[in-house]
Amino acid sequence: MSQFLNGALRRLTPYTPGEQPRNQAYIKLNTNESPYPPSPGVLAVLNRAEGENLRLYSDPEAVELREALAARYGVERENVFVANGSDEALSFAFLAYAADGRGVAFPDISYGFYAVFARLYGIPVRQVPLRADFRLVPEDYNHLHRTIVLANPNAPTGLALSRDEVERIVRANPDAVVVVDEAYVDFGGESAVPLTARYPNLLVVQTFSKSRSMAGARLGYAIGDAALIQDLEAIRFSTNPYNVNRLTLRAGAAALAEQDYYDANCAAIVDTRADTKRRLEALGFTCTDSRANFLFARHPAADGGDLYRRLKERGVLVRRFDAPRIGDYIRITIGTRAQMDALLERLEGLL
Amino acid sequence: MSQFLNGALRRLTPYTPGEQPRNQAYIKLNTNESPYPPSPGVLAVLNRAEGENLRLYSDPEAVELREALAARYGVERENVFVANGSDEALSFAFLAYAADGRGVAFPDISYGFYAVFARLYGIPVRQVPLRADFRLVPEDYNHLHRTIVLANPNAPTGLALSRDEVERIVRANPDAVVVVDEAYVDFGGESAVPLTARYPNLLVVQTFSKSRSMAGARLGYAIGDAALIQDLEAIRFSTNPYNVNRLTLRAGAAALAEQDYYDANCAAIVDTRADTKRRLEALGFTCTDSRANFLFARHPAADGGDLYRRLKERGVLVRRFDAPRIGDYIRITIGTRAQMDALLERLEGLL
Repeated sequence: MSQFLNGALRRLTPYTPGEQPRNQAYIKLNTNESPYPPSPGVLAVLNRAEGENLRLYSDPEAVELREALAARYGVERENVFVANGSDEALSFAFLAYAADGRGVAFPDISYGFYAVFARLYGIPVRQVPLRADFRLVPEDYNHLHRTIVLANPNAPTGLALSRDEVERIVRANPDAVVVVDEAYVDFGGESAVPLTARYPNLLVVQTFSKSRSMAGARLGYAIGDAALIQDLEAIRFSTNPYNVNRLTLRAGAAALAEQDYYDANCAAIVDTRADTKRRLEALGFTCTDSRANFLFARHPAADGGDLYRRLKERGVLVRRFDAPRIGDYIRITIGTRAQMDALLERLEGLL
Repeated sequence: MSQFLNGALRRLTPYTPGEQPRNQAYIKLNTNESPYPPSPGVLAVLNRAEGENLRLYSDPEAVELREALAARYGVERENVFVANGSDEALSFAFLAYAADGRGVAFPDISYGFYAVFARLYGIPVRQVPLRADFRLVPEDYNHLHRTIVLANPNAPTGLALSRDEVERIVRANPDAVVVVDEAYVDFGGESAVPLTARYPNLLVVQTFSKSRSMAGARLGYAIGDAALIQDLEAIRFSTNPYNVNRLTLRAGAAALAEQDYYDANCAAIVDTRADTKRRLEALGFTCTDSRANFLFARHPAADGGDLYRRLKERGVLVRRFDAPRIGDYIRITIGTRAQMDALLERLEGLL
């Protein structure tokens, strides 16, 4: 930290991403990436002609991609915002809807970045405790008079709210924006996007990083009332109008044209998740009812830190959070069948 | 704008990028892109294997690219910050060094985004007038006790300060960070990077968008004292740790391995600039002594708005700024020789 840094930023507690080893030595089940590559059409647009076109700026309006997303989700282009990863869309939403003192509410156990954004913008936080079984009760969010941020399915628990439950929260808070972060929705959740036409206070955030196998391309988006999208656009054009690069814009549109490919990948991941859960339970693990591309599991004979370390020694990276209530757990990304076999073999060996 | 938007953001005046037509109907000389494609090595890394690897997140530490930049500029990895375009690095610098009330100073004529960042973060601005001939006098920046931001070469004038002149400003302001935006330095400017080892208050920002033909890849960087870089990293890890996508990280490192290719492109652009300037002057234009990949020119018989419109009708896009002191001018990106021939032919026809 320099002597020159803005005093308000001296207490930043930056987000800690999962380990990203620069070699391929590990079976990498720690950051919820897809085990499958992007679809053929995505690979096809990463060609020489597009490479040569990198000399030109990307379309700051992202028209082609926004229209493809609008068609996919049954909304208009004006209802779609695209971002350099969904973290950017979330960051802008925190700035737009909570950084003026009204504050934010989110569950005590959720995506760790929410607390980081709040710290960056000096936003007061109300953490709403999940129940003992990690369930979120919609009525706990009634009349909070502050911006509400929910991951659905939640991370790292994997538990999902139904669309009706989300709607109850949105309806109970007409004076507040409700941001629903659906990073994992394609693995068995129920999206709130159809509600956006009826609720001007609902913003749904999704990503290409998980079900669409493009974590490294950096592409996220938000869907909501056109006025909310205008708010986010005003911030984008005040920081970085060319926020998404040309290749990612093209790749994103190409991915949307091959929905069947991604649907099949999601179905395979859901199958592998069910099978892995059964086998973990046979080893004595308890797992939450995850609707995401990961399992959240604990074992009576080993704490989460132990499991994490001993798996890493054996070449498997999982994620563990050293935090209240969840320190016993590990979060395991669903990989290929072969990767899950390797994981279970190592777990059998170490338990 | 929604009813929910943060009150402090209701008066945002977002940046207006140059027009980005989605078809190829125009000779595009309006946003200072390179007329030449990225180098062969860059095109080579945009291959199928890298496409498949998009399923994985990018390296949040950007080690390979930062080490390549450090080697290129004779600094250490700890002195290098990489960003999703240099606008992101500049945005973070405004937040880090001016958003706490100390304010910022920059020339009255410079890159239009500086005023936008200031508005976004609520930063008081002192505009320091350039002289009548657009020259910047270093002593005008003595003892301002606020963050100083300079484009060198300046935009849209193209005029450059020597390294000694930049050093005088940095030395006269030991209590303030001096940000030198060197987007155009490779076309004939003198970089301040060698000064960063001696001045803990100097941050130099550069980009791959201009001399390295990668505007559409979104890649910028900052070089400075390790403590300054840590400040920017704290903000990056509080907003978007995976801010640069995988393909751009690889492409950037590949570009640095082919410096000769880019040096030859820059030499060609400098030659074309000199030739175009002579021909514009023969048509009665006055041009500034630009050290950038554009010319800034006016004609006694037509105002800037007229020239812009009449060129656009004839299929050539240039940039014109409807702003005090420079409304008579047009900014013309240096393209290929053939593009410059076409421009001059149209100008002859319309004058």
